[in-house]
Amino acid sequence: MYIPTFDDVKTAHERIRPHIHKTPVLTSSYLNELTGAELFFKCENFQKAGAFKVRGASNAVFGLSDEDATNGVCTHSSGNHALSLSYAAGRRGIPCNVVMPRTAPQAKKDAVKGYGGIITECEPSTSSREAVFADVQAATGGNFVHPYNDPRVIAGQGTCSRELMEQTDGLDMVVAPIGGGGMVSGTCLTLSNIAPETQIIAAEPEQADDAYRSFKAGHIIADDAPVTIADGLKVPLKELTWHFVSNHVTDILTASEEEIIAAMKLTWQRMKIVMEASCAVPLATIIKNKDRFAGKRVGVIITGGNVDLDTLPWIKG
Amino acid sequence: MYIPTFDDVKTAHERIRPHIHKTPVLTSSYLNELTGAELFFKCENFQKAGAFKVRGASNAVFGLSDEDATNGVCTHSSGNHALSLSYAAGRRGIPCNVVMPRTAPQAKKDAVKGYGGIITECEPSTSSREAVFADVQAATGGNFVHPYNDPRVIAGQGTCSRELMEQTDGLDMVVAPIGGGGMVSGTCLTLSNIAPETQIIAAEPEQADDAYRSFKAGHIIADDAPVTIADGLKVPLKELTWHFVSNHVTDILTASEEEIIAAMKLTWQRMKIVMEASCAVPLATIIKNKDRFAGKRVGVIITGGNVDLDTLPWIKG
Repeated sequence: MYIPTFDDVKTAHERIRPHIHKTPVLTSSYLNELTGAELFFKCENFQKAGAFKVRGASNAVFGLSDEDATNGVCTHSSGNHALSLSYAAGRRGIPCNVVMPRTAPQAKKDAVKGYGGIITECEPSTSSREAVFADVQAATGGNFVHPYNDPRVIAGQGTCSRELMEQTDGLDMVVAPIGGGGMVSGTCLTLSNIAPETQIIAAEPEQADDAYRSFKAGHIIADDAPVTIADGLKVPLKELTWHFVSNHVTDILTASEEEIIAAMKLTWQRMKIVMEASCAVPLATIIKNKDRFAGKRVGVIITGGNVDLDTLPWIKG
Repeated sequence: MYIPTFDDVKTAHERIRPHIHKTPVLTSSYLNELTGAELFFKCENFQKAGAFKVRGASNAVFGLSDEDATNGVCTHSSGNHALSLSYAAGRRGIPCNVVMPRTAPQAKKDAVKGYGGIITECEPSTSSREAVFADVQAATGGNFVHPYNDPRVIAGQGTCSRELMEQTDGLDMVVAPIGGGGMVSGTCLTLSNIAPETQIIAAEPEQADDAYRSFKAGHIIADDAPVTIADGLKVPLKELTWHFVSNHVTDILTASEEEIIAAMKLTWQRMKIVMEASCAVPLATIIKNKDRFAGKRVGVIITGGNVDLDTLPWIKG
């Protein structure tokens, strides 16, 4: 298992720069007052393809030799990695096959197709997704870009907190949502090198708290098919992300579905940005644990904005 | 009738700077491709109090002498001017009385109260609003800050396109929504001074097209109670805004309710920003009249983001 280094992050940053946005950092005096903390929101919902995942996906796609790129790339993903990889592959002009759960938001499926990705659907469980994917990969021979358990992807995600640290004037903590741990691992990789005193807090839905339980137990615990509104955070840790999480994360905090939806609606209302339920988990945990964050300068990673606008969780259909 | 000058815009800008954001200008490669134009969105939905109206309101409030400020300020407004004036009065520490139609979005009423404004409700017609307001003003003695037919307000709104021109590298056209004409008048005032070659296009809902009909007729035509999803654009032109519209606007284009809602949803979906139906009218007219905008550098003013998230026009309740 190759463990990426901060040099890989710097190489990734140079490689992907033409394909990504340096996303803005927004602040909200209302949310600062509400939490007592000074919050800096890194808005990856404004990122190309609508999510931070385009960083890792672009690093993998544009790092391939021409020979390795011949059969294109393939992956499985709940959505944002699928469309990010489709976007990057489209820009390089190589095919992209993705396995997505049939329950993934329609907006994400449409976006994958819009970028030229080819979708094969699976059941919404880790076991089904891996089985269907094995078939797709065998049939296409594409280079497998795992959504998070891949050093190229983690190095790419590490560019996000590198920008965040440049854009702010030092932070006491960074809070990021955790699913498979790709964003958190990239954050660990970067901050342990350039800001080792900055704490890294992972935020997870109570209903998909396998990373939390892994962290407390000291080994990976994986759930097969957790159910949460935070559809980007259902997947389990894998060995590479576990390496970073177990070595560098300060703590993992959880929030209920209700708290996540309230934080999501509050962000839309006060910050006027469209972001996914998954990105609301950090703010939900900050509001829930105010004492822990009060008086601190806290970076919050808004991971994506690919929402199905026809089914918002606070509106009964 | 005092007609504000560009010097008034510059004075306003200095005066209000501590109380407003210099809002960002966003672009979207998707929308550029869709329209064939190069679009620059001035995002006043990220403005303090969630709308450009805070510019004019702050200019009026902070321009008052201590003596004139004694009884506070008062106004009538469908929403954003009400909450902007409440915000500015709150910062100065003077009372603010506002008359709002009982049908105004709940989110806007809540925001007015949150800023300390005192609401008196009226029926959703210009006649009712003016009658109720006369009573409120007589009772409070507050300084009347009209939502748009006021030189202080127009000079304040003129600071928006001044920033937009600084933030872009020249524009062929600026498109702004038109209701009473405050934003359009401020845009006319500024651009006729600093960029006289830049065309000014006003965009209006078909179902509240009194400015369009006025423009074609050559005199003000006022409807009493038009019905449109673009709740900020129901009010008629008045003499001061008519002065600017009739002298400097190149054309007024209209869009149907369906086209406005589609443009609103598209903006949320692709730009990941929360903005009001009123702000979608410019994009709706651009999509509808592509030939007119293709190949041009076009500024689009996103006027506000104070949406009632519980009742979105594309979701049936």
